[in-house]
Amino acid sequence: MFTHNIKAVLCDIGGVLYVGDTPIEGAIDAIKRIKERYPIRFLTNTTQKTGVEVVKKLQELGFEIQQEEVITALDMTKMFLENQKSTAEFLLTDNAVMFFESLKKYPKNYVVVGDAQHNFSYENLNQAFRTLLKGAKLIAVANNRYFQDHDNELSMDAGCFVSALEYASGQRAEVLGKPSKEFYELACQSLGLSSNECVMIGDDIEGDVHGAQKAGLQAVLVKTGKFNEADLQKGIIPDQVLESIAKL
Amino acid sequence: MFTHNIKAVLCDIGGVLYVGDTPIEGAIDAIKRIKERYPIRFLTNTTQKTGVEVVKKLQELGFEIQQEEVITALDMTKMFLENQKSTAEFLLTDNAVMFFESLKKYPKNYVVVGDAQHNFSYENLNQAFRTLLKGAKLIAVANNRYFQDHDNELSMDAGCFVSALEYASGQRAEVLGKPSKEFYELACQSLGLSSNECVMIGDDIEGDVHGAQKAGLQAVLVKTGKFNEADLQKGIIPDQVLESIAKL
Repeated sequence: MFTHNIKAVLCDIGGVLYVGDTPIEGAIDAIKRIKERYPIRFLTNTTQKTGVEVVKKLQELGFEIQQEEVITALDMTKMFLENQKSTAEFLLTDNAVMFFESLKKYPKNYVVVGDAQHNFSYENLNQAFRTLLKGAKLIAVANNRYFQDHDNELSMDAGCFVSALEYASGQRAEVLGKPSKEFYELACQSLGLSSNECVMIGDDIEGDVHGAQKAGLQAVLVKTGKFNEADLQKGIIPDQVLESIAKL
Repeated sequence: MFTHNIKAVLCDIGGVLYVGDTPIEGAIDAIKRIKERYPIRFLTNTTQKTGVEVVKKLQELGFEIQQEEVITALDMTKMFLENQKSTAEFLLTDNAVMFFESLKKYPKNYVVVGDAQHNFSYENLNQAFRTLLKGAKLIAVANNRYFQDHDNELSMDAGCFVSALEYASGQRAEVLGKPSKEFYELACQSLGLSSNECVMIGDDIEGDVHGAQKAGLQAVLVKTGKFNEADLQKGIIPDQVLESIAKL
């Protein structure tokens, strides 16, 4: 089904492999079959869960997935900063901040905003603002407005604080998660391949399909998860549309 | 110099009465003369200083000013909420929040954001966000990007957190300080007069002159404080332009 030059598969996680706590029918087998022919990377925008937690959930659901096959937005950010030989002022959870410890030797050329929740204090935000004033660039790893909190009510998410820092600094944040070009390019780079040698599979016609295509990948849309028939009227033409990943 | 129906004077403070810690030449006498003929109100957008502190500074500089003649953005907000028979979730300094104690009996129909500094915690912001989700309306008493902090560096100001709450809630804040129409209408109302019976004097062609004119007041621009000759090219025609308040 792929054109002849496809050498690897990138795959979204939620909505493609499972919905809630239930695997998509046939998805476990599909992943097994894909892995017999291609290297694969699973991509997720989360900055709260570490790769270890993401893998744990997938393995518990029955997927044969290895740690090195999962790339989270945090991995992506680390690769990006490593490429730039830079570190950042991080507005993230404490665990996530620790994940960037190895970059400490580099200059603080960026401010990175992800899910920080209670770390979004005035002191931390103001510290980030002052780093921006000194010339650092603003990166949004996550850009959501709100999320469903433990008490089942909505709570403010990273995008709100990205907006506060944009207003303060007059800078527009670069979004580093999907659907950014950088996200896809770094994923391909981690496989030692160029964009046109990879195919992306996802349920989000904008974040997954359009984002991947703009980065030069081929893209397959699956009709599971957040897919909605109206998505096909948005002027984005997936290279292939499938009922689910099981049909691959 | 005013048209016949002027019954009261509204006056900006910084840049009209003094610059830094020095009174504008002739301003002290001018205020004395105005007060012999008209009731006067001094208007300021500050939400950090209480009216008491504002009056103290003016008196120390030599102005004959009474407490009831100064209207700060906090007074303005209180009048607005009292008119609406509402209270608010307040993002302000502790002192400023206490100022609204008497409104406790009313329903929380608003979220009011001013200078809150360290009270801009995740918890407080999220509480405000949830109040907005329940249908409250967002009011920005201050909307600045940053201010010069005690350590002489810039720090994030109220506008940043207004922006965060706008992004979170999808709501646009109503700005209640100058140059809003409400600000001027409430000031006139506090004198028992209608807008066309009052004249506003200020050094800010947008906040003072244009704002007041849009609310139906006449407006005098003084060429002191933040006045810049280019201001006269902005398409806003003051009812009168004076070298300073001393020429009134």
